[in-house]
Amino acid sequence: MTRVAVLGATGAVGQRFIQLLSEHPEFDIAALTASSSSAGKPYHEAAKWRVDTPIPEAVRDVEVVETDPDAIPNDVDLVFSSLPSSVAERVEHGFCEAGYVVSSNSSNERAAEDVPLVIPEVNAEHLDLIEVQRDNRGWDGALVKNPNCSTITMVPTLAALTDFGLERVHVSTLQAVSGAGYSGVTSMEILDNVIPYIGGEEEKMETESRKLLGEFDGSEIRWHDVDVSASCNRVATLDGHLENVWAELSENPTIADIYEAFEAYPSQELHSAPDPLIETFDEPDRPQPRLDRFLGDGMAVAAGGVQETPAGIQYNCLAHNTIRGAAGASVLNGELLARDGWL
Amino acid sequence: MTRVAVLGATGAVGQRFIQLLSEHPEFDIAALTASSSSAGKPYHEAAKWRVDTPIPEAVRDVEVVETDPDAIPNDVDLVFSSLPSSVAERVEHGFCEAGYVVSSNSSNERAAEDVPLVIPEVNAEHLDLIEVQRDNRGWDGALVKNPNCSTITMVPTLAALTDFGLERVHVSTLQAVSGAGYSGVTSMEILDNVIPYIGGEEEKMETESRKLLGEFDGSEIRWHDVDVSASCNRVATLDGHLENVWAELSENPTIADIYEAFEAYPSQELHSAPDPLIETFDEPDRPQPRLDRFLGDGMAVAAGGVQETPAGIQYNCLAHNTIRGAAGASVLNGELLARDGWL
Amino acid sequence: MTRVAVLGATGAVGQRFIQLLSEHPEFDIAALTASSSSAGKPYHEAAKWRVDTPIPEAVRDVEVVETDPDAIPNDVDLVFSSLPSSVAERVEHGFCEAGYVVSSNSSNERAAEDVPLVIPEVNAEHLDLIEVQRDNRGWDGALVKNPNCSTITMVPTLAALTDFGLERVHVSTLQAVSGAGYSGVTSMEILDNVIPYIGGEEEKMETESRKLLGEFDGSEIRWHDVDVSASCNRVATLDGHLENVWAELSENPTIADIYEAFEAYPSQELHSAPDPLIETFDEPDRPQPRLDRFLGDGMAVAAGGVQETPAGIQYNCLAHNTIRGAAGASVLNGELLARDGWL
Amino acid sequence: MTRVAVLGATGAVGQRFIQLLSEHPEFDIAALTASSSSAGKPYHEAAKWRVDTPIPEAVRDVEVVETDPDAIPNDVDLVFSSLPSSVAERVEHGFCEAGYVVSSNSSNERAAEDVPLVIPEVNAEHLDLIEVQRDNRGWDGALVKNPNCSTITMVPTLAALTDFGLERVHVSTLQAVSGAGYSGVTSMEILDNVIPYIGGEEEKMETESRKLLGEFDGSEIRWHDVDVSASCNRVATLDGHLENVWAELSENPTIADIYEAFEAYPSQELHSAPDPLIETFDEPDRPQPRLDRFLGDGMAVAAGGVQETPAGIQYNCLAHNTIRGAAGASVLNGELLARDGWL
Repeated sequence: MTRVAVLGATGAVGQRFIQLLSEHPEFDIAALTASSSSAGKPYHEAAKWRVDTPIPEAVRDVEVVETDPDAIPNDVDLVFSSLPSSVAERVEHGFCEAGYVVSSNSSNERAAEDVPLVIPEVNAEHLDLIEVQRDNRGWDGALVKNPNCSTITMVPTLAALTDFGLERVHVSTLQAVSGAGYSGVTSMEILDNVIPYIGGEEEKMETESRKLLGEFDGSEIRWHDVDVSASCNRVATLDGHLENVWAELSENPTIADIYEAFEAYPSQELHSAPDPLIETFDEPDRPQPRLDRFLGDGMAVAAGGVQETPAGIQYNCLAHNTIRGAAGASVLNGELLARDGWL
Repeated sequence: MTRVAVLGATGAVGQRFIQLLSEHPEFDIAALTASSSSAGKPYHEAAKWRVDTPIPEAVRDVEVVETDPDAIPNDVDLVFSSLPSSVAERVEHGFCEAGYVVSSNSSNERAAEDVPLVIPEVNAEHLDLIEVQRDNRGWDGALVKNPNCSTITMVPTLAALTDFGLERVHVSTLQAVSGAGYSGVTSMEILDNVIPYIGGEEEKMETESRKLLGEFDGSEIRWHDVDVSASCNRVATLDGHLENVWAELSENPTIADIYEAFEAYPSQELHSAPDPLIETFDEPDRPQPRLDRFLGDGMAVAAGGVQETPAGIQYNCLAHNTIRGAAGASVLNGELLARDGWL
Repeated sequence: MTRVAVLGATGAVGQRFIQLLSEHPEFDIAALTASSSSAGKPYHEAAKWRVDTPIPEAVRDVEVVETDPDAIPNDVDLVFSSLPSSVAERVEHGFCEAGYVVSSNSSNERAAEDVPLVIPEVNAEHLDLIEVQRDNRGWDGALVKNPNCSTITMVPTLAALTDFGLERVHVSTLQAVSGAGYSGVTSMEILDNVIPYIGGEEEKMETESRKLLGEFDGSEIRWHDVDVSASCNRVATLDGHLENVWAELSENPTIADIYEAFEAYPSQELHSAPDPLIETFDEPDRPQPRLDRFLGDGMAVAAGGVQETPAGIQYNCLAHNTIRGAAGASVLNGELLARDGWL
Repeated sequence: MTRVAVLGATGAVGQRFIQLLSEHPEFDIAALTASSSSAGKPYHEAAKWRVDTPIPEAVRDVEVVETDPDAIPNDVDLVFSSLPSSVAERVEHGFCEAGYVVSSNSSNERAAEDVPLVIPEVNAEHLDLIEVQRDNRGWDGALVKNPNCSTITMVPTLAALTDFGLERVHVSTLQAVSGAGYSGVTSMEILDNVIPYIGGEEEKMETESRKLLGEFDGSEIRWHDVDVSASCNRVATLDGHLENVWAELSENPTIADIYEAFEAYPSQELHSAPDPLIETFDEPDRPQPRLDRFLGDGMAVAAGGVQETPAGIQYNCLAHNTIRGAAGASVLNGELLARDGWL
């Protein structure tokens, strides 16, 4: 069993980490951290538990500690981070300097040249960038990122299309409120409404996609030259980001080719990796957030509605934004780090 | 005052017709029709009134008649139609043969060669196609259509862009439940959910847009050759269709040029025509359905979030789907028919 | 293993039956029935599956048969029924006459003198009324009912209060849309709205509660004389009925006494019976539908917010309306029928 | 025209004040105040306008000033206050001492012996308590309060029942999210959910109702001895509080008597007072928030669903919580203060 710590364990994504880790066969929760105002309290008091399964007994009375490398046990081998981006860089660097390997969901440094941005089923080999990172930064530890929840929903499907000559992508997102955190979207903003803007989200989708689909040449990631244009919307769903995608391709695959490419796209042999990674639907009105977000225990990507367009194809995809798109993504990266010997 | 009849007056769009017509300065309600099971009842009994303003006193006790040319008074000059498409063609033809001019919101025959499909601010001159229609069909009356609610939301903004060389459009819609009629979307389908499919809607947007932007050469409409690809979604809003649009242009206008083109796009001098037709927002998170659907008394189109993309521009637009997108559209066409001497 | 049939297996409650029975350790699905238009189709075609877990493989290709005693295998020992009340009486009588024991969720005959209305943890002994029923009706089979979903949410808590001299109850319900079936509440009715009326629901709560709390004297049920007044509302939740209850008591228990009575109320040793039956909360803002409806796998009743009032106490209770309040209730009655030797 | 100031003009209730006052025939906005961080800015910059009608042109560029008696013009005769209760007492006392008459929606001091708590149609004569207040506090100004939004929805209907011997009330509320302010309820809390608790709300309903229905004997308010027990719930509606009420009466009126008492209950001759005050419905499923909250321009109380119960009657009532229940209530009190010569 790998001993793990969760930084920022009381927030919305932190609670999903607890839920996923409390029954994990390879990971053992050794420390939960939060801000100094929560340190010293038992977890059930520090966190306002809002997941719809009960708070796991094993963490209920665990004493929360400060978010500091000195506050966690020495035998911790892997640190999960879900901190506000305003403080994440400083804190994460501190842990990396202290020798910890950090699997982070925070948005800082995702585009940095020497930080691996990884979806294990898509670009596991980017993890080798850790060597470059350690050289550059002089760390014993390492910092690995997973992408933004809206990016992670789409990129597995794009990865399945690269053999058809992926040239340009238009994507419109219908994102759930949980993506903004527990208090991120007020009810007055979203009841009987849509907000056609999420700050910074479109840029994240446009840049992260290109890095994820890029190739690591031993010293750097050569970004894919696909041109991505995103339009991001917040809608009144609790969980599950749905996305309308248009992909312009240099080849001319049939609709059947596309479905086959999605279904045949390989998964990884990791505990949290779903198989298949991409679940497809023939019905034109699927996937739908409420019905399909829990496919693969919330770790699968659902796709459907494939149609031909004059310049390529269009389709819809969906993933659970706080599982596959956040906590589950970091846990999966942690499993990959363990399997490939980086801990 | 022009004497008007409303066919299908008890349904959701029919009620909006009543609301708009009951205080109209040029139109006077002379007859309300419904199915034979409602005929003979006072309107307030025949219709389950669900608009959030009280049922107008003037129609409350009007006796509903059958949807038949013989059942309405001879002095009616204009007929508004909002019938299910399954029966609309047969019924509308009957009224046209009997000499009535019909302004219809029903979806049948919108693509027909000799049926004008009109947004008065966009293509008022297409009304001259009535001459061709009367020659073809031997009618004393005439049949004029307004487009589908999702089309009507976008086309005024596209019309404002044609001078920049409009070549290709991708559009993703976030459509309100009222667009499907009062019972069209169940609560189990849409609470905490999105449905990424509306039967036939994408095709309507793709074809109607090209006809609306086309040119009438005296004998036929030459459709615009813009290539439109739509992805249509139903979301949990009551009224107001929001749309994310990407427009590929042959010219290279600045963002300021686009805003200016939207703001300067001319309206019409008609009672229900808003001025300006297109209201713009600088704030990136506008327009929003709940906040902006009543601009111009529900007849304006709102636009905002203009950005440059590698191939052109992207922006968001919004209109009230049961006012500008349905009943109000037909009423406005009725005003144009009256002004231009077709009654 | 007991061989079971599900009548009306394609509807919303029917799908919940399938979900609960497909992994049941004591029951084996032997037949699925539906209307004649569905008969002959494989289940996955006959049912538009809308539960948020995938359709169980074991029933996916089962051929649906007509709802007729002759259409199901002879070795079926227990029949679950979830038919529209308009046809339920005729059909259920047919099965009972043919010798089948029917555990029914349909609302007909719940108040009939010789039909046991049962919540196993509350009045299991009412099952002995089957002897009277068989004498009266000359059946080899038997008909057993579970109460309405709004009744079943409240009655276990009232049963825990009877020792304090339960005299009068006021109850206001906030009921989920799934209680009306898949198409029962349109989105136009419930988005940004509440409907303060559910046809027949208040009477059901007022009469069923008294029968459930009554005593079986060997020949008839003597209804409890508590006076129940209900006010029923539909709100925009998917699942989970929340109820505000005021109970006037002849005794003067403390708040602690009430919590203890709830927590100590006995469950039953049956597969689907949760233990404890009533889960309590100290936090004043619990239970909440979204957070607490899955307690006890959807079979527990949650209670909280107990306060003293001048005339007694007030509190809130909650249960999952399509599990504990419908399909799960019938399955639990089936388990009781099997255990107590009625099959 | 009376010159008025609005304290706390940028918040959610403050914006409703602006909306109501900007077209008021008797009141003229002379000053808008907000916190010091907003002072000096034009109103449209200081306020994030979220009402669904455009920001009135007349206030758009008005410079916001600090919430201080010295910051507003001397010719202001009436001050509307909608401040957080944490600061309201100190600030309101400052304005009263400086000679201003304050009509306040803030919740502090509503139960104070010498502060009139007024609904003009119910207890206009309580305004005479100002004499006592001025004696006690040595103010030239005066402080008048309107009740809480949930209280104000019910009390007009209770006032109409006092002749029948009103003894005890049970009330369950289904309150809109706007009652908690723009950011008071997060979307994660209320989508697919109900919160059965609103801090302090039940106590407010129980005490304010008794004060409002009380009698002023020339020196003090003798509270009505009705016993009110409330259970308050937050539901996913934007505006409009719906309430289920049970009233125990010493008399035995018929249902027709109750409807007549509601319909005949007198209004006031004031600009914002609706006539009738109480609008009734025969349909059992009305009033509903979305359909009926704008009756009387949002100032009427809707009532329906009257039924007899063993101990009295039950019914439903509804009012617009941010108009009749907040800003409109204060404006109406201002009109009463002006008419009765207190300015």
